[in-house]
Amino acid sequence: MATSEFSLSCPFPIRDYPHVLMAHGGGGRLMQQLIGEMIAPAFSDTPLALQHDASTFEVPAGRMAFTTDSFVVRPLFFPGGDIGSLAVHGTVNDLAMAGARPLYLSAAFIIEEGLPMETLWKVVSSMGQAARVCGVRIITGDTKVVDKGKGDGLFINTAGVGVVEHAQAISPAQVRPGDVVLVNGDLGRHGMAVMAVREGLEFESAIESDSAPVAGVVRQLLEAGITVHCLRDLTRGGLTSVLNEIAGASGYAIAIEETLVPVREDVRAACEILGLDPLGVACEGRFAAFVPESESERALQIMGAHPVGVGSCRIGKVTDQRTSRVLLKSSIGAQRILDLPSGEQLPRIC
Amino acid sequence: MATSEFSLSCPFPIRDYPHVLMAHGGGGRLMQQLIGEMIAPAFSDTPLALQHDASTFEVPAGRMAFTTDSFVVRPLFFPGGDIGSLAVHGTVNDLAMAGARPLYLSAAFIIEEGLPMETLWKVVSSMGQAARVCGVRIITGDTKVVDKGKGDGLFINTAGVGVVEHAQAISPAQVRPGDVVLVNGDLGRHGMAVMAVREGLEFESAIESDSAPVAGVVRQLLEAGITVHCLRDLTRGGLTSVLNEIAGASGYAIAIEETLVPVREDVRAACEILGLDPLGVACEGRFAAFVPESESERALQIMGAHPVGVGSCRIGKVTDQRTSRVLLKSSIGAQRILDLPSGEQLPRIC
Repeated sequence: MATSEFSLSCPFPIRDYPHVLMAHGGGGRLMQQLIGEMIAPAFSDTPLALQHDASTFEVPAGRMAFTTDSFVVRPLFFPGGDIGSLAVHGTVNDLAMAGARPLYLSAAFIIEEGLPMETLWKVVSSMGQAARVCGVRIITGDTKVVDKGKGDGLFINTAGVGVVEHAQAISPAQVRPGDVVLVNGDLGRHGMAVMAVREGLEFESAIESDSAPVAGVVRQLLEAGITVHCLRDLTRGGLTSVLNEIAGASGYAIAIEETLVPVREDVRAACEILGLDPLGVACEGRFAAFVPESESERALQIMGAHPVGVGSCRIGKVTDQRTSRVLLKSSIGAQRILDLPSGEQLPRIC
Repeated sequence: MATSEFSLSCPFPIRDYPHVLMAHGGGGRLMQQLIGEMIAPAFSDTPLALQHDASTFEVPAGRMAFTTDSFVVRPLFFPGGDIGSLAVHGTVNDLAMAGARPLYLSAAFIIEEGLPMETLWKVVSSMGQAARVCGVRIITGDTKVVDKGKGDGLFINTAGVGVVEHAQAISPAQVRPGDVVLVNGDLGRHGMAVMAVREGLEFESAIESDSAPVAGVVRQLLEAGITVHCLRDLTRGGLTSVLNEIAGASGYAIAIEETLVPVREDVRAACEILGLDPLGVACEGRFAAFVPESESERALQIMGAHPVGVGSCRIGKVTDQRTSRVLLKSSIGAQRILDLPSGEQLPRIC
């Protein structure tokens, strides 16, 4: 097997171990080498301190947030991202949705025996890079290897902790009639980027995932003193799932105007080919914010000025009807109920 | 498929969905039902508040610990435990090894399509029970489903956060010549319990896993003011890996007396059949504590009085030789180097 230039950038000797062996998860010398010479260097510019069971850090008194997500996306690499950057963005975004500033992540790998070692190096390099961009540190981890045929290349779990530095309560229970629903850009790109690769759809140019960290723009909203009633990232199940969940939890109906919901033409076309509703397709760098009408213009200005909020817009509002429904008003004025899909529109897109 | 009495104890309608479907990980109604009617009730006596991206909690100012572990043990159930209780004990113990009091866990599931729903209910029930015994709360989670043939029944990741309530530095760098090495009971039972099932070894009575939480006994040591230089749980790679890692990090040689290391006869017999060294076999409820000689008797008394420390004993000490080696003195007085195995003695035992 030829050793690529990228492989040579790895302190771990990929040419000696071109594929992951069961022994790389066994707790012995090979595992220590893999962690010490590949994983730790990817996550930290300074060599990691001694491997220990848990990492410790100092916190001020106050509220913290804690979250976890496993990533099983197939394929591992797609236009606009890969499982590594996705695993960082996903958990950073979950913390942001609780109104927290992300601080630390964990990274746990379940590797299928035989995974090309260069693939692992690409993924952990991407994770390290994404973490630096997000301003979070990956401080603890775990590596397991399962037999060939008992996994699917690579699964990653990231958990995250963050601090809540404001006094607002942000949850579906805070949503009120009259609240405006904002989103930070066009929807459905992540799911369709992954599906287009998997289904071999050809477009003039590839659909790129929207995978991105949204913690920065959320922090700007909160630091500007914007009242934010609820935040939710539009991942599995897309806008449809999120709105239904929030309508259910708040008790109120949410009315969305279909013409206001931004969906790119290539995403819409790909959805049509696959028979999907773009509103139900996952994003990985998009969120919905519920804010009082009086704050919505200022919120939109802040969001629109941030790189991951360039396409921010208002898509609807919370009504005073106590029906917990999501109502979609079409371009010709017809109104229909946007119901929660029963299950899996798009398997394994995150 | 007959519905068992155990299935009927589940709020989720197992008879309607006897097996996990891809849709149970899809972000739609089926996933919400699985989380709301099975997973959340298993983890909490009070129905969980609304599902949100991250959970928040209050902390005092000070040091916190954060850790993660994925569990891929095969089979999912073994004498003395299962993947669910193991996933709780493993992470609770990792926090304890950093000297932290475990507070909160996350639970993330990667389920292979087709897993019997009753199996999942058994596992999450066991996790909930183990968490209650450990005094920790599972407050955030994630559920993914992968296609049949792309997983192996069930993988679980748990991450955990805890608080450090003392001022001691506990790490391999603190280990000093003259420190005594203590363990809290007989070694190798977890690994051999799993291997005996997998290899179909027959004994008069089954070898039971030592899987147990050790945070309670560690807390008693710290609250009693015992100086603890280093703590390490004897998981993958067993005592051999742990001692080699600590010898390497501290710079000193560690001398162990083989006759003092407690290994049960049935474990020794099973190891002989499989050609394994019991000192390299994983435990899941055992740890090594490095304490100054002057504190060792009091430490042993405290450990021995705790249910998970009944078999506590002294097995060796740290020498003043700066060789980073682990020396094993046999019953006939011969001394050999106990070297780190290169790889996987026992695949997938945790």
